[in-house]
Amino acid sequence: MSLFSRVVVTTLPLVPKFVVGHVAKRYVAGETREEALGTAKALNESGALATMDVLGEEVSKRSKAEAAVEEYIRLFEAIEERGLDANVSIKLTLLGLKIDETFCRENVARVAETAASFGNFVRIDMEDSSVTDATLRIYREVHGRYGNVGAVLQSYMRRTLRDISELPAEAPNIRLCKGIYIEPRAIAWKRFETVRANFVAALDKLMRTGVYVGIATHDEHLVCEAERLIDRYALGRDRYEFQMLLGVDEELRRILLDRGHRLRVYVPYGRDWYPYSIRRLRENPEVARHVMRATLGLR
Amino acid sequence: MSLFSRVVVTTLPLVPKFVVGHVAKRYVAGETREEALGTAKALNESGALATMDVLGEEVSKRSKAEAAVEEYIRLFEAIEERGLDANVSIKLTLLGLKIDETFCRENVARVAETAASFGNFVRIDMEDSSVTDATLRIYREVHGRYGNVGAVLQSYMRRTLRDISELPAEAPNIRLCKGIYIEPRAIAWKRFETVRANFVAALDKLMRTGVYVGIATHDEHLVCEAERLIDRYALGRDRYEFQMLLGVDEELRRILLDRGHRLRVYVPYGRDWYPYSIRRLRENPEVARHVMRATLGLR
Repeated sequence: MSLFSRVVVTTLPLVPKFVVGHVAKRYVAGETREEALGTAKALNESGALATMDVLGEEVSKRSKAEAAVEEYIRLFEAIEERGLDANVSIKLTLLGLKIDETFCRENVARVAETAASFGNFVRIDMEDSSVTDATLRIYREVHGRYGNVGAVLQSYMRRTLRDISELPAEAPNIRLCKGIYIEPRAIAWKRFETVRANFVAALDKLMRTGVYVGIATHDEHLVCEAERLIDRYALGRDRYEFQMLLGVDEELRRILLDRGHRLRVYVPYGRDWYPYSIRRLRENPEVARHVMRATLGLR
Repeated sequence: MSLFSRVVVTTLPLVPKFVVGHVAKRYVAGETREEALGTAKALNESGALATMDVLGEEVSKRSKAEAAVEEYIRLFEAIEERGLDANVSIKLTLLGLKIDETFCRENVARVAETAASFGNFVRIDMEDSSVTDATLRIYREVHGRYGNVGAVLQSYMRRTLRDISELPAEAPNIRLCKGIYIEPRAIAWKRFETVRANFVAALDKLMRTGVYVGIATHDEHLVCEAERLIDRYALGRDRYEFQMLLGVDEELRRILLDRGHRLRVYVPYGRDWYPYSIRRLRENPEVARHVMRATLGLR
């Protein structure tokens, strides 16, 4: 990481908002549902699947959470109408988890019920460690009721192997990613190679125990390890999928599709693009440097 | 590693003795049995176990070896009297291995017999490759007589996987560490990642074959791999323990205890702290730099 990148990472709140706005243009489909549906359509045409996400998190007003539920219902209707191959991803702190867990769970249940009526699927994103337990609790409850709900586990969390042991017995569907929130050492592995090794360990355990896995990574080494495990357990292409973020490494996307894998792209949209874009910036501070230099007319 | 650190490592004999003395303060419990027992008590109170070591090695006089045996006998009596959860670690070159192997073996047997009379345990430390064969020979002989004796294998040694195959069938108890002595390439793996990979391979083999393992490492990556293997083989917490050195990473100590693992801390004491401290310095040359700078009044 260059000195500039390090400065950007450690002083993220100081990154000018116009830079973050440029970053958002890269990683976010747009502010409207219409733009996101257009992106999903283009992805489908290229052979990729989509998971659509309404941006927003940490809401403290019930009305905001209820509006998000309504937006997800409209979204499922539009996906169905247009015959798109897309499911949705939801963040529980947008659906009211920080207000009241029961309120949030019933919001999730409404989204899952709508999905079920269309034969579709809901992914519950994982956020920071303050909500891991509650998120997995709600996942298990709603999965018990509707089945068409999946969760996310992060390989930087020390608890992840244990969490895999406690997944529902019936048709669990898990996205595995590294994790991007800043966590204390007692909770999360800190070293790059440890997080990677734990990704492989978790992926192995998930596949070995018959869990459908969304392999969410852009890391070539992990793609290689994933292909090794797919080969090792002779998994058919209906037993897993790769997942990537919008705006990241379209060449890798093409490669994975051409190799015959199913690949799903995360398509976020909406007006609350700031925190999501800051997390993307943390993953890839070089982007900020490019934007900054281009804006200042430097080459 | 900084240039300064590199210089310190390659010119260790030139490190001023006052610096090594400061280093010893960090890694050694004190010069007296009383100080070491106090350290063990504090460790027990924090939830950790101890293994107590009388410093000294490479003795050439029988009287020195015999004095060490007497010290270990007093130590076992004191551990018992105070109800401490502590065993001991012994170095065979302190118990006369370089004088005469039979003499040394009978010294070890006396220590093991004392331990057995208290239902306690003796760990035979591993030293450099000049004594590996003799150490394992004495381990097997005394283990055959008393049972309550364990050995150490080092993952930097090329022979380690083979040594695991030749462990006693009955209740073997092995500490696995990376190894710190300077060895020729024909005997030891040289690359950091190779030593790590062989640690994982050896740990896997030990666990797979039912050996009780003391997982002696401060390396986050190896802790992660160890937890993966514990999970993989569904080992109860009575089937292994983590081990760490006094003076190293107390935060990791706390994390491992809080995750429900048994953890034992190596507590060396005595007046012969020089060679032990030099080895610690080789592992962590930064410590010398800090001591040196602080002493010279640099900031």
